[in-house]
This record gives sequence, C-alpha cells and structure tokens, in this order.
Amino acid sequence: MGINKILVANRGEIAVRVIRTCKELGIPVVSVYSTADESSLHVKLADEAVCIGTPRSKDSYLNMQSVLSAAIATGCNAIHPGYGFLSENPKFIEMVEATGITFIGPSANVVSRLGDKATAKMIAKQCGVPVVEGSDGIILDQEDGLKIARKIGYPVMIKASAGGGGRGIAIANSDTEFLKAFEMTSMEAESSFGDKSVYIEKFVENPRHVEIQIMADKHGNVVHLFERDCSMQRRNQKMIEEAPSSMLDDSLRKKMGESAVKLAKHVGYVGAGTIEFLVDSRKNYYFMEMNTRIQVEHPVTEMITGIDLVKEQIKVAYGKELSFKQKDLQILGHSIECRINAENPLNNFIPTPGKIKKILFPGGFNVRFDSHIYPDYEVPPFYDSMLGKLIVFAPTRKEAIRKMRVALEQLVIEGITTNIEYQYAIMHTPEFIKGAYDTGFIAKFNGLIQGEYNEELLGWTKRKIK
Amino acid sequence: MGINKILVANRGEIAVRVIRTCKELGIPVVSVYSTADESSLHVKLADEAVCIGTPRSKDSYLNMQSVLSAAIATGCNAIHPGYGFLSENPKFIEMVEATGITFIGPSANVVSRLGDKATAKMIAKQCGVPVVEGSDGIILDQEDGLKIARKIGYPVMIKASAGGGGRGIAIANSDTEFLKAFEMTSMEAESSFGDKSVYIEKFVENPRHVEIQIMADKHGNVVHLFERDCSMQRRNQKMIEEAPSSMLDDSLRKKMGESAVKLAKHVGYVGAGTIEFLVDSRKNYYFMEMNTRIQVEHPVTEMITGIDLVKEQIKVAYGKELSFKQKDLQILGHSIECRINAENPLNNFIPTPGKIKKILFPGGFNVRFDSHIYPDYEVPPFYDSMLGKLIVFAPTRKEAIRKMRVALEQLVIEGITTNIEYQYAIMHTPEFIKGAYDTGFIAKFNGLIQGEYNEELLGWTKRKIK
Repeated sequence: MGINKILVANRGEIAVRVIRTCKELGIPVVSVYSTADESSLHVKLADEAVCIGTPRSKDSYLNMQSVLSAAIATGCNAIHPGYGFLSENPKFIEMVEATGITFIGPSANVVSRLGDKATAKMIAKQCGVPVVEGSDGIILDQEDGLKIARKIGYPVMIKASAGGGGRGIAIANSDTEFLKAFEMTSMEAESSFGDKSVYIEKFVENPRHVEIQIMADKHGNVVHLFERDCSMQRRNQKMIEEAPSSMLDDSLRKKMGESAVKLAKHVGYVGAGTIEFLVDSRKNYYFMEMNTRIQVEHPVTEMITGIDLVKEQIKVAYGKELSFKQKDLQILGHSIECRINAENPLNNFIPTPGKIKKILFPGGFNVRFDSHIYPDYEVPPFYDSMLGKLIVFAPTRKEAIRKMRVALEQLVIEGITTNIEYQYAIMHTPEFIKGAYDTGFIAKFNGLIQGEYNEELLGWTKRKIK
Repeated sequence: MGINKILVANRGEIAVRVIRTCKELGIPVVSVYSTADESSLHVKLADEAVCIGTPRSKDSYLNMQSVLSAAIATGCNAIHPGYGFLSENPKFIEMVEATGITFIGPSANVVSRLGDKATAKMIAKQCGVPVVEGSDGIILDQEDGLKIARKIGYPVMIKASAGGGGRGIAIANSDTEFLKAFEMTSMEAESSFGDKSVYIEKFVENPRHVEIQIMADKHGNVVHLFERDCSMQRRNQKMIEEAPSSMLDDSLRKKMGESAVKLAKHVGYVGAGTIEFLVDSRKNYYFMEMNTRIQVEHPVTEMITGIDLVKEQIKVAYGKELSFKQKDLQILGHSIECRINAENPLNNFIPTPGKIKKILFPGGFNVRFDSHIYPDYEVPPFYDSMLGKLIVFAPTRKEAIRKMRVALEQLVIEGITTNIEYQYAIMHTPEFIKGAYDTGFIAKFNGLIQGEYNEELLGWTKRKIK
C-alpha cells in the first residue's frame, strides 16, 4: 500500500514547501487551516483544505483530534507534520498510528524517548557521543556540588531548576567562585521561584551551534548529510544558518557525522532528523538534543547536497530505501539562509503583522526564496513572524555571502516592517565575513546597533524599487 | 588592468541577469535605457543609468555611438552586450575595441567571420564538422542542379534565393521529383520575387535543434558544456529548451562536443558561444551556425553543470583562465526552461503589452525565475514579448517535467495575457513527456489547439491564486 493522499498538518512556508513536493510527486494534498488562515497560500495551493478551528494554535493547529478528523474525513493515508505544532508530540503520533494513517516521521516511541532531554542525553552517552557533563539531577548540598564541579572541570554553570530566560544562572571558574555562586544562585532561586534547588553543568564557552542532518529509512540505512551552523541566534531563535560550518574541518565533520548516525541507529530512527551539538573553541563537541522532524533550515542542506529532503521523507515513510548512500554524498559548495521576519529589529524585534502590499522575490542562479506570502496577504498576529527564507548557494562561502547581499538588495516586501535591512547589515559585519562568530554574537550586535554601528550598517540606501 | 566598471548594453531580463552577476563580483554596473524603459528593473538595479534615446531600437539600443558614449562618459572599461541588439555586430565591437574598452565577447574579426553564414559553413567544413551539403551558390541550369542533387543525396531542398518565410521551397525525393520541383520553384520565384535563381540543400527530415555551449579563455583553453535541445520552436523562435537532449547518447554528445570545441579553437574563439546543429532521426548532425554571445537559454546549462556562465564570461574577458577543465564537467541532472511571454497563444501569438498588476514568482528547491518584471510594471510594445524564463532542475527528466508543471501552476502574472497556460499544456503533451518531438512539433500543436486538443489541454483550472 502506497501513499495516495497526504494531509499537511501545518501552515506558512513549510506547508507550502511540503505541498510543492507532494505535487511534484503527483500525490494529492490536503491543507488544514484556522479561521485566521482562510486566505493563506497553503490553502490556495492544496487540492483540498479543511478548516480546523479558531486562530489560537491550541484551538486549531495543536488540536490533535481536529487534525486527525480532517485527515480521516478527506481520505488521507499519510500526515506530514512540518515543524513545530504537533510534529514532535508523541501522543499525536500515537493517535495517528492507531488509525493506520502513516505519520511522516519517526515512531511515537522514538519521538517520546528523544523528546525527554534527560533520556536523550543518556542515550547519547550510551552511544559514546559526548554530552555536556552535569550533576544528573538537583544538588542541595554545597559540598556535594563542589565535588561534582571538580569532577566535571571548570568552568561550570550553576542553574536554578525552576529558572529560565537567562535568570538563575551563574558561572564559576574555580572552587572559590563555585562556593560563592552556589550560595547566590540558591538564594536567588528561592526568592525568585520559591524553589532553591539547583543543578550543575559544564559551561561551554563561546559555543557554536552546529547540527547534523540525518536521514534514515525503514531498512536500517542511516546517513548524515553534513552539518549546518546555526550560531546566529537571538535568544535561542535561529536567524541565519549556513552549511558547511567554518568551524569544522573534515576530521571533526566526519566524527560528528558518525556520532549522529550512531545515535540514530541506536534508537531505530526513521525519517529526517537533526542532532544539535555545541562546539567549543577547542573543537570539542557536545550533544544537546535531537529534533525528530524537518528543520526550518533544511534548505541549506538541500543546496549543498542536491538532495530534496522532503521528497526523501515521503519516500522513506512510504517504505522505500534511501535513494543515496553515504559515499554518494558530497558538499557541493556553500549555502546560506536568512530568515525574513515580520519584526522590527530597531524596536526590540517586536512582531509587525499587517497587510503586505507589493512584493518582489529576487531571481537568478542559485537564489531561492521559500515563502507563503503573496501580494495583499495579511500577516496574522497569531503565529510566528517568519515571512520566508532567503537561501543562496555558490561554490565558495565568499561568493555565497556576496550573492546573499545582492539577493537581499533585490528582495522587496512592502507594507510591513521586516528584518531585511538587518540581515543585510549582518552580512556586512567582519564577524560574519570571517566566519568567526558564536552564539553570543547576535546579542553583542544588537547592543551595537543602538549606537554608531547602527548608522554604518543600517544605512542601507541601495534598495531602489519603491 | 582589471575590469572596474561594466556597461550592460541591453534591457529586459538579460540586463537584470548580467547586473546580478556584476554585483556579486563587486563590479559597479551601468545600465542604458530608451525613454520607453525609464522605469525598467535594469535601470533601478544598476549603480548608474544613462538614457540613450527614444523607444525605437535603432534610436537607442542599436545606436552604437550612443551606447559607446554612455560607456565612456560613465568611465566603464568593459561592455557586456547581452544577446540580440549589438551583441553580434562586428562594427560595434570594432568601435569598442578602438576605444580600449573591453568587449565581453569574442573579437570583431571572429564575430564577423562566424556571422557570415557561407564563411561559417566553410570554416566548419575545414574543421571536419558536418554541414548541410548544398550547391554552394545559385543554380540556373536544371542539369547542373540534377548532378548536385544526386551528389548530395535525396531528399534535397530547392530554395529560391530571394525567398523567405517558408515560401519558394520545394522538396525532392528522386530525380523525377527534382526536375519537377526545380522548374516549379524557379517559376514561382520569378513570379513572386522577380528572381528565378534557386539553390539546393540537403533536406534534413524532422530535425532536432541541438546546440552545444562552449566557453573559451584567452589562453587557448576551450571546453564544451554539453548540449541544449531547442527543438520546441514556433517559426524559428525557441519556446522551450532543455538539457540534456533526449535525442543524444553519450557517444553522439561527445562527438558533437568535440566538433564544437574544434571549430571554436580553429577560429581563436574567446568567451561564451553556441554552435547550433540540426540532428536528424538517424542521429546525423549538421552544423547550422554559431552564436557568438550568451544565449537566452543559457540557464539550463548553468543548472546542469553548476557553472555561472555570465560570471565566467566576465572573468575570461578580464584575462583569467577558465575556472574548470573539460574533465571537471559533468551533467548533474536535467533542466527545462519555459519562456514566459506577453502573447496570446489563442490569437496567433499576438503580443500583449500592457500594465502588469500582481505577480507571484514560484519558489522552492531548484526553481528559478529570471525576469525583469515587477508589480505595476508596464510592458512596452516596442521590444520582444518575453517577460521572463522559468527554469527548473531535477535529478531526472521526468522529475523536471513534474517540477515545471508545479512551478507553472504557481507562477502568477496578472493584468496581461501570457503564455503560461500554453506552456503548461505543452508540458502535458505525450510528445514532450516522451521527449519525442522535433522542430515541427509546435506548428502541429498549434494546429491542434484550435480544435479538441484545446479543450483538453488548455482547460487548466488549477490556478488558484486570483
């Protein structure tokens, strides 16, 4: 039995992305939408579309029963979850599996195990994949903590169990600093969160976020498709991704790829997946987590390998063997992706939903814009602010940066404020040009653009199409 | 001395195409424009723009002195001619050369020799490249004609010297037919054109138009970048191009490639060039002509080889060696290009200039749209009707066809009539799907779409974005 109709349980650019590939495969495709998305492109492009609720995600895109009912009612025998929403929800996957519909992704069991951070870390350790060492639980006693800190090796992080958003965290470089930090963090945690328990973790200094793309079929074949560098982040939100990473050499690339494949094989993974690592300045890498679905930034991998990852996801779910082996894959050049968001970088990145007027997508050789926007489209305020992803490919990183600049110059989205100029400015920073940036760069840059840097880098006067 | 500023002596999509690459190379770029093109994209995107005259081509884009003056006035030290207009005009190239400005293309002498069809054919023969055998001049005597016809081998074509547009042509398969056809053609020629002289040429039955792309540097390196099949033509106007050709096998591809390289080497060619051949159903190939500039359809070659031909043109003109050798090149997949024109296929392809309203370019993996149009752009009536080129790439021809269909479904140009639906229909014909078409197909198809075929193939109801 093959796949004869696919429901795309998502919205925005990823829904459009998946619909395109379904159509290219000749498979009919059904969209679901909230009342806020009635006139969305993913609704217009699908063969059928079903309204599944009101704007709030929990009343539509996160409503498992509504999504599943839409699939059953339209006779779909497969569901593509995209990213976000229900894509990594083991309960939803279980429900889908129970109806006999194919979930395009790994099994509920695998997703459940990898979704729990502690379990995922344990699995990684079992596979011999380096992890960020820590206390494996909360520490209440200072002396116990000190022993663990010494064992892990400084610097370490003391984190409040109940903390979050950067609060309740301290870093210690020595025994003395540890004792002081432990006491302070416990106290702060108690007063802020009413819970003084803390845990300890190795502090990875100035890390790069480097992730490995893997693909696995139902026949035990697992390959990796190299890495993506996603260190350009604002508050853990990726903004720019590139492949390959300027941080990796061939030997480290091979080692990290092998680690990723080992982990995926160990859990019996099927489909597209991403293993996220931190890499420190001495090129040590540490497992962070595994994402059990297609990533936003998958296009850069498609560009450097020539592989259509969504097409491969669908084929694998259908039971086919991977259409390539590890030895068939090579890095063909360099790719960069800039996320284009409806947000105001000069006003704390506040989202800027509203009506888009004129648009013009840049064309040309090896320039790609994956998006769901169209002229007169109204960006609703209910969902994330991404309008599309501008992706370029070139033989070298230097050429890719130049190509991205030209593409950004020629990308026009009128009617709402976007981060196009901001991304253009980033493409001109010495740090990005040299490839010498870590996950702390964006925060530093955002501080700078309030001052002089702003004048220099945001003075983008070259956009001529008005 | 390098290139420090380039003038693009063209308009429309090719001007935009060249500007993009100049910008990616970091070279300032100057556009020229007629008063009809004041608000054109190639004017908006250039660093500087110079008005060179009134709308009629001969008063602006064909005005050699105006173009050259613009280059001198703006301090350009190179001119990219694009295609058409002055791109193959030896006199213009001579004028450019005389000023010390670099013409991005071969020398005036080479262009002049290859531009003359009889000389070009002679050169091809000297290189051992097969040509369409003929009478090498006019024939007045029936008996002389008969001898030549026998020597060439039937079928032959008898063509009136003064003829054109398909008139004054007859085909003969035997001596008897020859004698009759000779008399008739001479008589018809005399009454129609007042000149009864005819010439004789081998008749190539149901030919495919297959052309070889070559690149040559100033250091004697010449390579070919495989073929393009451009048999989908309406009255010698190409409509759809693809690479590779389903007509060629590896051995014929190699032979034709070697013929092209030999010819280019023989004349001391520099830059990008195309050698056009006819290929008959028995896989014999015949030299037709050489185009000494970038072709409209160059993107399909870029897609299957990964080489940026315009970038390479500029580097070669600058004196650099080709950045690749023959052995580095391979066919990476299949590419198709559909020309998107402002014309009405259901009304004899009459041009449909006017104001474009909304547009939406299709995005996604390996979909490219090279165009100069933008929202509210007014297509002027003075120039050719091409609005852009939709190009796709995929691992196989079958996948490329599916990708093109999906891309055509998602390409939106509102406000004027276009041939998008027509191209979509072609993509569904058994002949295109099988790759079994020759230069006569479009004429046959255009006859069919007046009848039942029309209903079936032009009943394209899937375009949803209104």
